[in-house]
Order: sequence, then C-alpha cells, then structure tokens
Amino acid sequence: MIVRDTPHSFRLFFILRGSVLPLIYGKILFITLLGVVVAVAQHFYPDVFPDFTLAPVALFGVALSLFLGFRNNASYERWWEGRKQWGQLVVASRSLSRQLLSYIDGSEKAGIEAQEYTIKLSIAFSHALRHQLRQTDPWSDIQPYVTEQDTLFLRQANSLPDAILRLIALKIRQCREQGLLSDILQASLQEQITVMAQVQAACERIQTTPLPFAYMLLVQRTAYLYCFILPFGIVATQGLVTPLFSAIIAYTFFGLDALSEELAAPFGLSANHLPLHAISRTIEINLLDILGEKPLPEPIEAQDHRLA
Amino acid sequence: MIVRDTPHSFRLFFILRGSVLPLIYGKILFITLLGVVVAVAQHFYPDVFPDFTLAPVALFGVALSLFLGFRNNASYERWWEGRKQWGQLVVASRSLSRQLLSYIDGSEKAGIEAQEYTIKLSIAFSHALRHQLRQTDPWSDIQPYVTEQDTLFLRQANSLPDAILRLIALKIRQCREQGLLSDILQASLQEQITVMAQVQAACERIQTTPLPFAYMLLVQRTAYLYCFILPFGIVATQGLVTPLFSAIIAYTFFGLDALSEELAAPFGLSANHLPLHAISRTIEINLLDILGEKPLPEPIEAQDHRLA
Amino acid sequence: MIVRDTPHSFRLFFILRGSVLPLIYGKILFITLLGVVVAVAQHFYPDVFPDFTLAPVALFGVALSLFLGFRNNASYERWWEGRKQWGQLVVASRSLSRQLLSYIDGSEKAGIEAQEYTIKLSIAFSHALRHQLRQTDPWSDIQPYVTEQDTLFLRQANSLPDAILRLIALKIRQCREQGLLSDILQASLQEQITVMAQVQAACERIQTTPLPFAYMLLVQRTAYLYCFILPFGIVATQGLVTPLFSAIIAYTFFGLDALSEELAAPFGLSANHLPLHAISRTIEINLLDILGEKPLPEPIEAQDHRLA
Amino acid sequence: MIVRDTPHSFRLFFILRGSVLPLIYGKILFITLLGVVVAVAQHFYPDVFPDFTLAPVALFGVALSLFLGFRNNASYERWWEGRKQWGQLVVASRSLSRQLLSYIDGSEKAGIEAQEYTIKLSIAFSHALRHQLRQTDPWSDIQPYVTEQDTLFLRQANSLPDAILRLIALKIRQCREQGLLSDILQASLQEQITVMAQVQAACERIQTTPLPFAYMLLVQRTAYLYCFILPFGIVATQGLVTPLFSAIIAYTFFGLDALSEELAAPFGLSANHLPLHAISRTIEINLLDILGEKPLPEPIEAQDHRLA
Amino acid sequence: MIVRDTPHSFRLFFILRGSVLPLIYGKILFITLLGVVVAVAQHFYPDVFPDFTLAPVALFGVALSLFLGFRNNASYERWWEGRKQWGQLVVASRSLSRQLLSYIDGSEKAGIEAQEYTIKLSIAFSHALRHQLRQTDPWSDIQPYVTEQDTLFLRQANSLPDAILRLIALKIRQCREQGLLSDILQASLQEQITVMAQVQAACERIQTTPLPFAYMLLVQRTAYLYCFILPFGIVATQGLVTPLFSAIIAYTFFGLDALSEELAAPFGLSANHLPLHAISRTIEINLLDILGEKPLPEPIEAQDHRLA
Repeated sequence: MIVRDTPHSFRLFFILRGSVLPLIYGKILFITLLGVVVAVAQHFYPDVFPDFTLAPVALFGVALSLFLGFRNNASYERWWEGRKQWGQLVVASRSLSRQLLSYIDGSEKAGIEAQEYTIKLSIAFSHALRHQLRQTDPWSDIQPYVTEQDTLFLRQANSLPDAILRLIALKIRQCREQGLLSDILQASLQEQITVMAQVQAACERIQTTPLPFAYMLLVQRTAYLYCFILPFGIVATQGLVTPLFSAIIAYTFFGLDALSEELAAPFGLSANHLPLHAISRTIEINLLDILGEKPLPEPIEAQDHRLA
Repeated sequence: MIVRDTPHSFRLFFILRGSVLPLIYGKILFITLLGVVVAVAQHFYPDVFPDFTLAPVALFGVALSLFLGFRNNASYERWWEGRKQWGQLVVASRSLSRQLLSYIDGSEKAGIEAQEYTIKLSIAFSHALRHQLRQTDPWSDIQPYVTEQDTLFLRQANSLPDAILRLIALKIRQCREQGLLSDILQASLQEQITVMAQVQAACERIQTTPLPFAYMLLVQRTAYLYCFILPFGIVATQGLVTPLFSAIIAYTFFGLDALSEELAAPFGLSANHLPLHAISRTIEINLLDILGEKPLPEPIEAQDHRLA
Repeated sequence: MIVRDTPHSFRLFFILRGSVLPLIYGKILFITLLGVVVAVAQHFYPDVFPDFTLAPVALFGVALSLFLGFRNNASYERWWEGRKQWGQLVVASRSLSRQLLSYIDGSEKAGIEAQEYTIKLSIAFSHALRHQLRQTDPWSDIQPYVTEQDTLFLRQANSLPDAILRLIALKIRQCREQGLLSDILQASLQEQITVMAQVQAACERIQTTPLPFAYMLLVQRTAYLYCFILPFGIVATQGLVTPLFSAIIAYTFFGLDALSEELAAPFGLSANHLPLHAISRTIEINLLDILGEKPLPEPIEAQDHRLA
Repeated sequence: MIVRDTPHSFRLFFILRGSVLPLIYGKILFITLLGVVVAVAQHFYPDVFPDFTLAPVALFGVALSLFLGFRNNASYERWWEGRKQWGQLVVASRSLSRQLLSYIDGSEKAGIEAQEYTIKLSIAFSHALRHQLRQTDPWSDIQPYVTEQDTLFLRQANSLPDAILRLIALKIRQCREQGLLSDILQASLQEQITVMAQVQAACERIQTTPLPFAYMLLVQRTAYLYCFILPFGIVATQGLVTPLFSAIIAYTFFGLDALSEELAAPFGLSANHLPLHAISRTIEINLLDILGEKPLPEPIEAQDHRLA
Repeated sequence: MIVRDTPHSFRLFFILRGSVLPLIYGKILFITLLGVVVAVAQHFYPDVFPDFTLAPVALFGVALSLFLGFRNNASYERWWEGRKQWGQLVVASRSLSRQLLSYIDGSEKAGIEAQEYTIKLSIAFSHALRHQLRQTDPWSDIQPYVTEQDTLFLRQANSLPDAILRLIALKIRQCREQGLLSDILQASLQEQITVMAQVQAACERIQTTPLPFAYMLLVQRTAYLYCFILPFGIVATQGLVTPLFSAIIAYTFFGLDALSEELAAPFGLSANHLPLHAISRTIEINLLDILGEKPLPEPIEAQDHRLA
C-alpha cells in the first residue's frame, strides 16, 4: 500500500511509484504511434478517411465507461472487503485475548499457562494466514509462538491456519475439563474462533475466485477495440493533435483497467495491495502487550512510501 | 470457472474457452450481414437513407447501456452471493467439526464415534447440496459417509440436504441425552447447523427465483432493436465501415447480455459458473484431515483452465 | 412469477404473458400517433418546426435514464428483499422444527405432542402471512393445523401471524414448565421465533411503505414530457421514420416505468410478483415431511409458465 | 407519507399534494422568465448570442445528472434506513412482549404485574422516540403507560427514550431477584432492549448528521449555474421554445434537488416524511392486543391521502 | 461538521465556511486565466485553433464524471461508516451501562462501586478513541474517570483504548469472582465490550487505509488534463465566454475532487469532518446521567455553524 499525502499541482504528474503507468506504457505508446501514423496519413492524403466521424465512437465510449466503471467497482469492493476481513481479525484476536484473561481461572499455574499459550497461538494464526495468502514460508514467523510438539502436528496439517484454530479450541477444551472454565464461557470463546475462521474463509474466497473470466475478456477486448478505433474516429476533426488525444484517453482507460486488475486480488505484494505484513505485526504487538512482554517488536514502517 | 492469468495484448482476441463468443456469434453475424446490405445499398443508392442520423440512436444507446449495466450488476451479485454462501458453508463445516471435537466428551467410545459420524455427515451435506443444485445423482458421493440404515431414511426424504441436517441434530441430541454434552454446548452447535440451513435456502432462492422475466424481455428486446436500427443510423456517416462498427457494438451488447444470463444462474456447469465440485472437495479434504484420515483425496484441478 | 427459458431470436417479440406491454400499449399508441401527426405535418409544411433540434432532448434523455435507472434499482431491491425474507422464513421454519425435535424431551407423550403441534403452528404461520400480504381469506389453509380452541383465540387477534407466534411461544413455555426443556434451549428456540417475527415485519414494511410518492410523480411526469416532446425533437432529422422511433423509445421508458411499479409491491398476484403460494407450500411439504406425514401435498406447479 | 394509487395519464399533472412543485415554483418561474427574455432578445437581435452552442452545456448536464443522482441515492437510503429502523422497533416491541409472557413466571401476581408494566413501558418507548425525533411534547401519549412515580424519574432524565429502556431493564432485574426469571432468560430479554437502543441511536444519527454541507453546496450551486446558463445555450437552436425547455429542465433538476432534501431528514411532518405516528400507533395496538385490552385504539388513517 | 439550514437563492453563492472553494480557488484561477489567454489568442488569430472541436472532450468528460462519481461514492461511504461506528459506540456505551446496573448485584457496596467505575471507564474509552483518531493528548479528558493506579497502567499501554477495554473486562471478571455476577451474564456483558472493540478497529481501518493511491492519482491526473484541455476544445464555438465556462466546470470537478478527499478521512478537524467531540460529549452526558451525577456537562454547541 502506498502511504503518502496527495502531491500538489504539477508534481502529481511525475510520480511513478504506486502509479499504474509502468504497467501500461507499452499500450499507450502503441496507441500514440497509431495516432501519429493516422494523423500524418490524413494530413497528406485527406481523402483516406472521409467516412469516419466521432459519433459512433462516442456512443461506444459511454458503454465502455459504464463497463469499466462496474468492473472497477467490483474490484474495489474485493479490495475493501479484504481489508475489512483483516480488521475483523484484529478485533477477534484482541477480543479472544481479553476474554481468555477474563474467563479462565488465573489463580492456578495451569490457567495462566493456558491463557498465555492460547494468545500466542492467535499471533501464529495471523502470520499463518498472511503467509498462506502470499504463498510464502510461514515457519520463521510461527516458530516462536508454538511448542515443538505442536509444530510437528502443524507441519502435517492440510491447512495451517485451520489447524492452529483447532489447537486453540483444544486448549480451551482442556481448560474446561480441568475446571478452569465453565461451558458457557467456552461457548463464548468459540464465537471469537468462529470469527477467525470466517476471516480465513473470506480471504480464501477472494483469492481463489477471481472476477468471471468472460467478463474481463469482454471489458478488455472492448477497451482495446475502442482505443484502436479512436484515432480514426477523431482524426478528421482533430488533425495533428490526434496522437495527444489518443494517448490521454488510452491512459485513462488502460489505467483504470490495470488498476482494477491489481485491486481485484488484494493480498499480493504490489504497490496497491493490502499491507498484510503491517497488520499482522500490529496484532503481534497488541497481543504481546497484553501478555506484558518487553520489549515489543517494532511496527512495520513504510519504505519509500510503501507499506508491505 | 475459468482459472488463468490475463492473456496479454493480441492473444486476448483468440481465446474462446470461457468467452461468450460461441453463444452469440450467430447474432453478431446477422447484424454484420445487415450492415453489409445497408452499406452496399447506401453506396449505390445514397438517396435511400436520407432521413437517418445517429442522434436518436445515440440517445437510445445511453439508455440501453444503463439497463444492461443494471442487469449485469444484479447478475453479478447473484453469482457473488452464491460464492459467498459456499464460503459460508466452508466456515460452518470447519467450525462445526472443530466444536464437535472441543465440546463432546471424547473420553468414551460413544463420544468419539459421535464426533466422527457427525463430521462425516457434514461432508455428505456439502455433496448433497451440490448435487441438488446441479440436479445430478448424489449417492456415489454420499454413500461412504452415511450408515446403511441412515441411507434408507435419506432416500425417502423430500429434501436430501435438509434430512442430513436433521440427522446431525439427532446425533447431537443423543450426545446430550447420554451426558456427553451440556445443553448450552448443544445450543452452540445448533447455531452452526442453522448456518448450513441458511446456505441451503439461499442457494435454493438464487436457483428458483430468476431475475424478473419481464425485465429480461425488456432488456433483450431493446438490445435487439438497437442493434437492428444501428446500421441504418450510422450508414450515412460511416459508409462502408458500417458492418465493422455494427459487429463491434453488437459484440459488446450481446456479449454483456449473454454473460449476465450465465452469471444469473451460477450453480451450473458452464465455463463461468461456480466451481462447486472443487469447493465441496475442499470441505471433504478439510474434514477428513480433522479426522486424521490418510491418504486424503486429491483436490479438483482445473482442466484446460476450467474448474468444475 | 414467470418461469420459462429465455426465448430465442424473433420469438422474443411475440411473448405477451409476463411482458409489461399489455399495461402500456395505450401510451405507446398515443405517442406513435403523435409521431405520425408531427411527421405528416412536417412533411407538408416543413417550416412549422424550424427551431427544433435533438440536442436538448438528448440532454433531457440522459437525466431521465438516470432517474428511471435509480427507481428501477430501488424497486428491484424491494422485490429481491421480499424474496430474501421468504427465504429466511423457509430457514427459520425448518430450523425451528429441527430444534424442536432435538431439544424437547420426546420420551413422554406430552413432549411428542408439543413438538408436533408447534411444527403445525409454524406451517400455519407461513399461510397466515401470505394471506395477510395478499389480503385473502386464510382460514381454509390454517384450519387443518390449529386446534379448535386456538382457532377461537386467533379469530379475535388483531394480527393473525403475530398471534400464531405467541401461541408457539406459549407452547414452548409450557414445555419448560413441564420440565421437558431447559431455559437455555428455550432461549435458543426463541431466536428462531424472532426471525419469523422479523420476516413478518419486513414484509409489512415493504407493503405499507411505497417509494416516496413525490419521487414517482417526478419520474413519471418527466417520462411523459420526454416522450411527448420527442417527436418534435427528431422530426427535422428523421422525417417519416419519426413515429417508429417514438414508439420504440416510448416502449423502453414506459416499459421500465411500468415494470418498476410492479416490482415495487412484490407480494401481489401479477405475473412478475413473488410466488408466495409456491413458497409457503414448500414450507408445508418440508415440515410435514419432518413430521413423517404421508402422502405429502403436491408442490405448486407453474401454470402456463406462471407460478402464483 | 402520501398513500394513493398512481394516477393515470393526464391527471398526473394536476396533483399538488405530495408533489415538490409548491417548493420550487419560484425558481422555475425565474428560469422561465429568463428564458423569455433571452428568447425575445435573440429573436430581435440574433447577433447577441453568436458564440453560444449547446455542447458545453450538455457536457455539464451529464456531470450534474450524476451528482444529483448520487445525492438522491444517499438521501433515499437515509429515508429507507429510517423506515427499516422503525420496522425493527416493531419487531423488537412485539418480540420483547412475547418473550416477557413466555419467560417470566406468571403464576404469581408479581409476575403478571411485571409482564404488564414492562409491555406498557415498551409502548411508551415508541411514543417517546417519535416525539423526540419530531421535537413535540411526549407526555400526553406516555402518561397512560407509566406510573406516577416513574413519571417523576423520567421527567428529570436527559434522554427520555433511554431512561425508559433503563426502567424496563430495572423491572426485568427485579423479576430475576424475585426468582421469577433465570439469568439466562434475562440475558435473552436484554438482547431485545439492545435492539431498541440501536433503533434510537440510528434515528438520532440520521437526524443529527445531515449529508455533508459542502456536498449540498456544490450540487446546488452547480444546479443553479446550469439552469441559469441553459437558456443562453439553447436559444440559438430552439428560438422561441427556449422558455418551455428551460422550465421543464429546471423542474426536473430543482425537483429532484428539493425531494432529496426532504427525504434526507425523514422524521418530520412533510408530505414525503415517514408516518411515525401511524407506526407507533401500530405498536400500541399490537402490544395492547397482547395484553388483552378492549377496545383497542383506532389505527391512524390517511387524511386526504396523507399519513402522518 | 457544518450545521445550518440550506441557504436560499443567491445567498447560496456567498458561503465560504464549509465550502471547498478556499481549497481550490488557485486551481480555478489558473484554468480561468488559461481560458482568457486561449480566448484572446483565438479572437485575434482565429486560425491558431482550427483543428479542435468539443467532441473528444465531451467523451472524455463522461468518463471523468463516472470516475469522480465512483470516488465520491467510496469517500462518502467511508465518512458515513465512520459516523455509523460512532453511533454504534453510543449504543454500546449506553447498553453496557444499562446491563451493568441490571446484572451486577447492587445490594453490596462492592457491586455499586464496580458498576460506577466500569461506567466511568466506558466514558474514558470514548475520549481515548477520539484523541487517538485525532492524534491529540487524551489525558485531561480521561483523568477524571480513572483511578491513579490504573492511570499508571494505561500510560504504559501500547493502545490506550484497547487497554481501557481490558480494564473493563478485568473489573467484570472480579465481579464474577466475588459472586456478584453469574458467568452467563458476564458473557452477555462481554458482547458489548466486543462491539466497542469493533468500533475501535473499524475507525483504525478507515484511518490507516486510504483509498488506493493509484486510483487517486488516476482520477486527479485525468481531472487536471481535462480542465487543461477544455479551453482549447470549446474556444472555437464559445469564443470570449470560454473563461467563464472553464471556470464553472473546473469548479465542479475540482470541487468534487477536494470534497471527496476531505470525506475519505473523516476523523479530522476540517469543516466537513465528523463531530467526534460532540458525540463523545453526548456519551459522557448520557453515562453520567445514568450514574445520577449533577450537574451534567454542557453539550458541545456549534460555533459559527461548525461542530467539532
């Protein structure tokens, strides 16, 4: 995620980091060159494009704007839902920890240990979910919070985050069996675990189910056709300014298209993706603070305006 | 569902799998031919179409874009809600299993058997729901997870998935009666079963209640009329390029229409439908993993970029 | 509700059932005739309409499209929310029944009778709600499921569905008082009853609170003015084709207007209203199946593509 | 709220009650007169407006339509959320009453009295909330349902509806202390009270937080500028019909603006506001019916198509 | 937040407070001057701009309107969600207080003290959250409600609001351990605390996750380019009125852009931000009123139509 204040006036045009320009400059260049060719051709042989006018292009452009607008909307909602789910995870982690301290009988050593280990497992969960979504190796982040024996169990699990939730549930069950927790408070704790499971499933849903492929094809084909036809449509009236206009409009449409594609899969490491690392570090700091650990890890800082 | 990266540049135009082109090429061809006839007629007898101009067509086109956009929105939301419901089923299956292991007293054999059988019934539920939505035969997928006696009961049931939920509820009730579960934890388990019932009813709602028929009629009639009138409207200014323009615009509007129709009923087996088979297999793998079964079944892989 | 596959190509234009054409053909005819008069007048006295051009009409048309689009959106959401509420009722009825069998002690006759009667009252609720929304007589559908004594009580009630819910709550209370049900399971059952009460209140809300009257006035007046001005605006350029264009655009706008009005009050008996009869019959079949009754009533079938 | 069937054809244009015309006829008149002046000036001195064409006005009009459309959407959602909240209050009042009768031990006089008084306090709550939102005097409606002693307490309260909820909570607490209610059922009752508190806070939110002032300024200024420029923009092509066009378009835009403003604060007494009086009377009738009181108060009827 | 009635007619144009004009007058001036230069140049050397027409500008304008409209929508939703969260905090604070008085045994001094102190901590929570969001010093507002010992603890906490919630949970736990509260009622109280934690996390989400930077870049660059090109596009037809038109359209687009940026981060102290101070004071008054304190603090009044 890019974190910076809005740049003002002309400096706005010289920012590349976080911009989608690097992804689409090839296409823009191509359309601009096409515009140059068409403009030059029309300049010397004005009779080549007698039949073309802008009107049907305009009509087509309204439809394209609506379709791009819809796709952008759907992509943004996926991005924002991803962020909401991780916000939900922050709440559930904090609430689970708060309730563990408040519900489990802490007068005996077994109770204190159970509280502590379950909170540590919650930290491990947020790391495990992040690494699963980004397909990176989770173990260095998880190791410090899981016993060796449980690590063996987790390494064999099919879904690591889900297995951690099962460990948490097991720990809580043991507390009830040892008389450190009543069944009603166990059910209350389970609600937080279910929220964590919901966050996991929602993130998996966003990641494994892209926008319908045919929809993307339709929008992109339309955008290409539009930008390809555009120079021919405007050359009769715009003459030598045709390449400039073509470039600007290609920038607008291809830019929105590229950005929508980036936002639709929000858990990666690109400039406009969600800062999962920073969020899971926040959870880590919050929960270690609850346990009273000192010193706390540092929050993740934006590097070069960019938060991972 | 089509699973593949976005193809780049010109290869984009040569993809048929997942595209809606095969569904609408007849209509596009028809409009193109009409464009040819009109363009040729106008070329030789320019006085035939003196009265027509593009303006009212444009006006009509904005309205049509808005209506198609609305319908597309409604269809996409049905598709995405379908996916959300199946995501909800993933959560509920995992959470029910986790809670069964955490709540039911597993120190006696009866408890362990109850845990195991109830989890297996949850697997059967997801298969049963998928087969009901796709109107295929469920028994080969369900058989391995249900006792013979219960199979007899299920075969007589009016709604198979609902009957499986009743079996689960019955099993849980027996646990309470045998003292393996307190009433408060039974109520907590029932909440997950209610979520599963909600998923079933929501999928049935999406499947049995299409978008209002009159709405579809209105949009499709408008789209047909528009594409039919278009060549006459643009021939005076576009001349011999008329067929090309007509084809592109027919592709855009008919394509969006066809795609909307496909997304509005998302549980089938077409290229843009939801991969219910893959999701229910995921549930199967997750739950068998919880039970410690080895080896686990293989996840469903996309064949030729297509996930069923 | 109309239940049929999408008709293809030209047959699309000859469907009347489910179409809104019968509601608006008078208006379309009027606008067409106006178009004829204007076109003929312009043909013989071309100087009559020198001042008019299409441009301000187009401008007006974009605004009208947006307003109609918004109204259509709001109406569709009311229709879809109505359907969701009835889907919710299906879930709540099934879940209440499942929980009754799972919670109430069925080892004594009193328990079994209570389960059975409460489930029958749930069937009566869905019939009562449907009849209230459609303002038809409920008693023939309700009689079979309510004792004579309770019928007397219900006949005096101010709101029949609400009174049935109170009977259900009373029955459940008696079970607790007789020791057949713990207080915690009673509270769990009450949640389903509250869902049923929510469905009732939501349906009442949709039925008694139409879209703001002033909004409807504004949209309809604008649509009328637009279609009335249209022939004058296009006659200068379109000449004798003016009536055809006027008719098509009048069809589009008046059609969307009429359909929006129909969808906004979705509980009636028109072709595009919700099939409440079929849904409440589904609930009846599901619940009688749970009770093991044989033979089950037949589901409501679509007659002539129409489901009531 | 206006309650009437849609008027047909030309009668549509002669309805004032519920229309926004009375609020905006001044502005429309002004724009019309401006149109007359501009048209006459152009008729006699055609060279005065040589430079103006419609094109930039059209462009401006699309933007204005979108902004007005957005604002209308936001206002309508406030109005509809207000209605939903009051529907929620209907559910919560009925459910609280149903649960009071079902949960509290009614075999002793104390229990029956507690049930009755708590239900009466719920009636008082809906009256109190309505009067707070409309800033009218609540006491005549509340008096019959509150004891004299509690009236003294309520008169000193900072927020009357909130104080009534506290009285209800107190009454329920006494029942538990007297052994008429278990703690689990008390918690279940508290959920309904929390819903009532949510309704109150949501209504307060809608009432105290208008749409951002700057947004309203921007939209209204744009609408004014647009309608002011319009006659100059169309006079070259429309000539003497300019005033008519200006009037119609001013009606459309100012009308939507005025309606949006009315819907955005939906709890007042204007024609398009919500019928809070009728809804709180419905609650009163429902709850008195539950208590078996005879005769029940009359429902509020629409007077001259208007429901308060 | 600006609190004032809608000004009427021409006074509308002379309001600066709450308007976005002060933020964008520089840009408008620049575009106006550009318009002047272009218009004068065209007046004296009409051959300089022969190639330009409005058509492609119009096309571009529709796309820009849609993008600005989308961004405005997303920003408004952030602003309104922020307000909803604070409304949720009002409900949770009141409900927690009501339930504390209703659940905790108040017959002994320990119970009364616990009720009182926990309610005071809830007041402190709303102040702490506001100060965190506005990055101001919280201690003067919090001091009166927290014991000295707890202040020491809070000063070391990583997240102040979260630490206050943990203090509340601890207090409630002590009540259960002292026998003043059953476990079931403790779980019910925890639900309100979880709601408060959700409000905190949602506010943090809105504050730390701006709209995607690339999106903002794209929209702003497009708006700049559009307003820069506009004078060239309209000068051929509008002549000397070009600067006026350019200024108005620049006002519309830059104004919407500036307002969207302000609404997207709604917790600050600008004119269109949310009145967090007034809301947390309302909570303070409500809760002190529940405790029976006299005199209550004054509500925050709008100063010069502005509520902080």
